[in-house]
Amino acid sequence: MRVHLDCFPCFLRQSIIALRFGTKDESLRETILKSTLDYIQNTDISKPPAYTTTFIHKKIRQMLGIDPFKEIKSEYNQIVLRLYPSLKTTIEKSLDPLWISTRLAIAGNVIDFGIFTSVDIEGTIRKALNNQLAADDYNSFKNAISIADKILYLTDNAGEIVFDRLLIETLIQLGKEVKAVVKGSPVINDSTMEDAEESGLTGVCDVIDNGSEAVGTILEWTSSAFQKVFNNAQLVISKGQGNFETLIGTEKKIFFLFQSKCDVVSKELGLSTGSMLLKKS
Amino acid sequence: MRVHLDCFPCFLRQSIIALRFGTKDESLRETILKSTLDYIQNTDISKPPAYTTTFIHKKIRQMLGIDPFKEIKSEYNQIVLRLYPSLKTTIEKSLDPLWISTRLAIAGNVIDFGIFTSVDIEGTIRKALNNQLAADDYNSFKNAISIADKILYLTDNAGEIVFDRLLIETLIQLGKEVKAVVKGSPVINDSTMEDAEESGLTGVCDVIDNGSEAVGTILEWTSSAFQKVFNNAQLVISKGQGNFETLIGTEKKIFFLFQSKCDVVSKELGLSTGSMLLKKS
Repeated sequence: MRVHLDCFPCFLRQSIIALRFGTKDESLRETILKSTLDYIQNTDISKPPAYTTTFIHKKIRQMLGIDPFKEIKSEYNQIVLRLYPSLKTTIEKSLDPLWISTRLAIAGNVIDFGIFTSVDIEGTIRKALNNQLAADDYNSFKNAISIADKILYLTDNAGEIVFDRLLIETLIQLGKEVKAVVKGSPVINDSTMEDAEESGLTGVCDVIDNGSEAVGTILEWTSSAFQKVFNNAQLVISKGQGNFETLIGTEKKIFFLFQSKCDVVSKELGLSTGSMLLKKS
Repeated sequence: MRVHLDCFPCFLRQSIIALRFGTKDESLRETILKSTLDYIQNTDISKPPAYTTTFIHKKIRQMLGIDPFKEIKSEYNQIVLRLYPSLKTTIEKSLDPLWISTRLAIAGNVIDFGIFTSVDIEGTIRKALNNQLAADDYNSFKNAISIADKILYLTDNAGEIVFDRLLIETLIQLGKEVKAVVKGSPVINDSTMEDAEESGLTGVCDVIDNGSEAVGTILEWTSSAFQKVFNNAQLVISKGQGNFETLIGTEKKIFFLFQSKCDVVSKELGLSTGSMLLKKS
């Protein structure tokens, strides 16, 4: 997925969100925002928007001297951990735990502070469990899981990672060996090893990092160790719009679980913004 | 009114609107959009956003080699001219023609292709005539008009200028001498002398131009002839958000008739976006 002109204002909108999390100093916000304009000017529109946003967020972290999302990430891990027991019960009592935990994993993708400034987790859970998905390859997904021994699971955001833990626990109960992937170091509110630990995911399955601080999964920027794991994976479950944008062109058998949060991606998919998807590559 | 950080993405959004009107060449759009980033980088946030947007739109016109809004301006002059007879009847049949023509003039401010890509004129007329204004200084406005001999009327957009003609005709029927002002040369879809002629306004009152191609009315950039007229005016009626942004700080007795179209201005006014205002300076 390549950059559209409508991504340009959105790059600035995303920068402002990060800066508001990162500092109360309006003058510093202005200085940093202006300094990100060079990356927008150098945007290669033949590549996914994630390239430009990776550069921008790195610049913002460098100039702030902190990770602006550190606190909100931990806060949302804790918020979803408090929901964990009741969500676990919902899954265990259901006739199709895979169906419920998959839907919940898609609901969890709403916790995206790259795009949103506030989220309605419980409303999104209701929507995910009660409404149809805009793209629903569940039968194909269920079938692919039934014949796979090993699954590579690319997580997206902190907080959301607790929903991922629930789906991964279901997959393990189905006899699957799951390896989860987090970012190599902080970018936006994406999960890192710290979040995998805080969410309890490290106690559930093997967790590795991809050696990268890129938005989504820009394969060329990931570690060779991760690339090897990715290339050998039988089946990949990929969370979030960033991973969708950056991996949709690859040959791999991937199921994308995400919410389509921007007009550009939604238009390209022929869906309305805010749609929930379980989409086969 | 000064620039807020949220204006930065909006600068780009407005540029994209202009570029989509101006060319179908996506690569040229990208080149021009990137070239406007320098003006965003040089934005002086102590000044109104109109300074930056003036530079941006000038650059866009120069690089396109045409006025991207030329056709849509004429189209909307013609659309509103077709509505003119029935609007005129509505005003003439009313108990308070000033009230009705003022409301219609505010409704007409929806025709703004700097911010919108499509407009619902008839829906906006219904809203203006049937709902309360978010800020309503009508009694003070009526009183100020009753004691003024001469009124300076700053128009805003093409198409909208036909609504202005209706209000100006009402003011003339009330015995007032009205001088209308248009832009010195094209900027966004703002009215120039060509629009004053096409809308029939030049047959109704004296029309002058302000010698400027700035968004709103940036006094320091207007002609000395206009500045003299402005400084000597007893009462000014000012249309549109651009004029509000750039003139709100002045000492002049001004009534601002406009729709608050962006979140930044609306938030500053404590109103919701899309509010209609008749606001005394």
